[in-house]
Amino acid sequence: MNDLSKVNKLTLIGMGLINSSLARALQVNNFAREVIGTSRSSSTRNRVRELKIVDEVVDDYKLAVNDADLIIVGIPVSSYFNVFKEIGPHLKKGSIVTDVGSVKKSTIKDVMSVIPNNVSFIPGHPIAGTENSGPDSGFAELFKDGLCILTPFLDSHKPSVDIVSEMWRGVGMKVDIMTADHHDIVLAITSHIPHMIAYSIVGTVSSLEERLKKEVTKYAASGFKDFTRIAASDPIMWRDIMLKNKTAILEMLNLFKSDLSILEKAIKDENEDFMEKLFTKTRIIRKEIIKKS
Amino acid sequence: MNDLSKVNKLTLIGMGLINSSLARALQVNNFAREVIGTSRSSSTRNRVRELKIVDEVVDDYKLAVNDADLIIVGIPVSSYFNVFKEIGPHLKKGSIVTDVGSVKKSTIKDVMSVIPNNVSFIPGHPIAGTENSGPDSGFAELFKDGLCILTPFLDSHKPSVDIVSEMWRGVGMKVDIMTADHHDIVLAITSHIPHMIAYSIVGTVSSLEERLKKEVTKYAASGFKDFTRIAASDPIMWRDIMLKNKTAILEMLNLFKSDLSILEKAIKDENEDFMEKLFTKTRIIRKEIIKKS
Repeated sequence: MNDLSKVNKLTLIGMGLINSSLARALQVNNFAREVIGTSRSSSTRNRVRELKIVDEVVDDYKLAVNDADLIIVGIPVSSYFNVFKEIGPHLKKGSIVTDVGSVKKSTIKDVMSVIPNNVSFIPGHPIAGTENSGPDSGFAELFKDGLCILTPFLDSHKPSVDIVSEMWRGVGMKVDIMTADHHDIVLAITSHIPHMIAYSIVGTVSSLEERLKKEVTKYAASGFKDFTRIAASDPIMWRDIMLKNKTAILEMLNLFKSDLSILEKAIKDENEDFMEKLFTKTRIIRKEIIKKS
Repeated sequence: MNDLSKVNKLTLIGMGLINSSLARALQVNNFAREVIGTSRSSSTRNRVRELKIVDEVVDDYKLAVNDADLIIVGIPVSSYFNVFKEIGPHLKKGSIVTDVGSVKKSTIKDVMSVIPNNVSFIPGHPIAGTENSGPDSGFAELFKDGLCILTPFLDSHKPSVDIVSEMWRGVGMKVDIMTADHHDIVLAITSHIPHMIAYSIVGTVSSLEERLKKEVTKYAASGFKDFTRIAASDPIMWRDIMLKNKTAILEMLNLFKSDLSILEKAIKDENEDFMEKLFTKTRIIRKEIIKKS
């Protein structure tokens, strides 16, 4: 499958925030002639039927991938092994499979152990999302001006990488290629640890005695309010990310904890210089991010 | 001064984000007949003159408070002692002084040691802000639908509390009364510790080796990106808050660190149940906050 015009049938497995957004975006740009959606949950399938964001909703994963040229897997990363094992024998020879998971190294291992050799698996991660989940939370513009990271292998079929890239570019993303290892470290810092911290501190608050808890939610200022938004993200998805990217997360967390202790000591010692320098330095990073986005 | 119609002259000391926003909001609602602005920085004073957001810009604090009925102090909390000492002898008998600082207990101590007895000091904290600072960053709508906490004393002059309340309500805020101690604990959780953590983790990133740092800023996803916004807040203001609310911050930080260790252990032990429960519980807090705002 070298030719973009050959994407006759595209199948979305899982219809959460990412895949339901992709379905909506694909309706706009006609990248595939036919888009199939499937989900384990019958209520999700019914909702997707009502939303009319795919051409057809299929109940069964095996039937949904039948004759598909391009399959996008958008499910919690802990389900990869079982789902790929289930669909593996039903994938068309020469078809391309990609995913949208936030962890790459350990998920690739799960997939490679069960996917047939005559299928191209191109691991992917569109960096996009909101704290909402489910098919109703999706919207066509979710990917606009975002970045998508692909982590193909040295021997990946180049035209397959191109087709997956083309799809993400077609919905507004810039595509970058890196190794799975590197992806997992970068995402541990930029996304997984911030989520871990936000979940933790919001959890601390939910364990406070009732009166204080009420006031904390009432007076939630900038800071805590942002943390609650992050900590409202999909629990299953994030449980899985923490487990699947455990090594990188725990490694980077040590770095963060040690820096937090240094700041704690500076507060204890009333080390004004240290704080002023740190709080000034961090403004520069913000400027660089704003410049790029 | 029992009568609102008697706010002839209102003086804003410091013209940063809060006071320059207040100046703009007061221009709309005519709460005071005359609004004076002052700042230690000549470039700020010049800019405020250009912006025309107050009736008059006065160079000297002592002259600025002369004959003022209501004075709003919006300066870093570490400067309170010196500034109140300087303006104290020049405050009109019966005038009302309030502030906008994020820490109350220790700042009240600083102020009470130098303010004359014939002046009403009503400590205040409008919970509003952005990551920007300086007179250009202010805007009249900053306070709209926000909460302002006042922490008067048991023997505070009731009409003075009413006038300060009236001013904040006039620019769109709801006013709540609580003790300074309580304010400092609530704010440590909702604002100070989130800032401390954001500063720390963004600081960790700025110490990474160059290539990784570049990628982290490039791929800054939800999570880290929010942290960088928080960590772009005014360095001097936040240095001062960390110092002045040290006790409450260090106390609540211990609670948070211990909860973070429990989550870390759950990741190490792959305790799926623990994570799923925690990540589900935190969604509830978000819903409560969204409901209230």
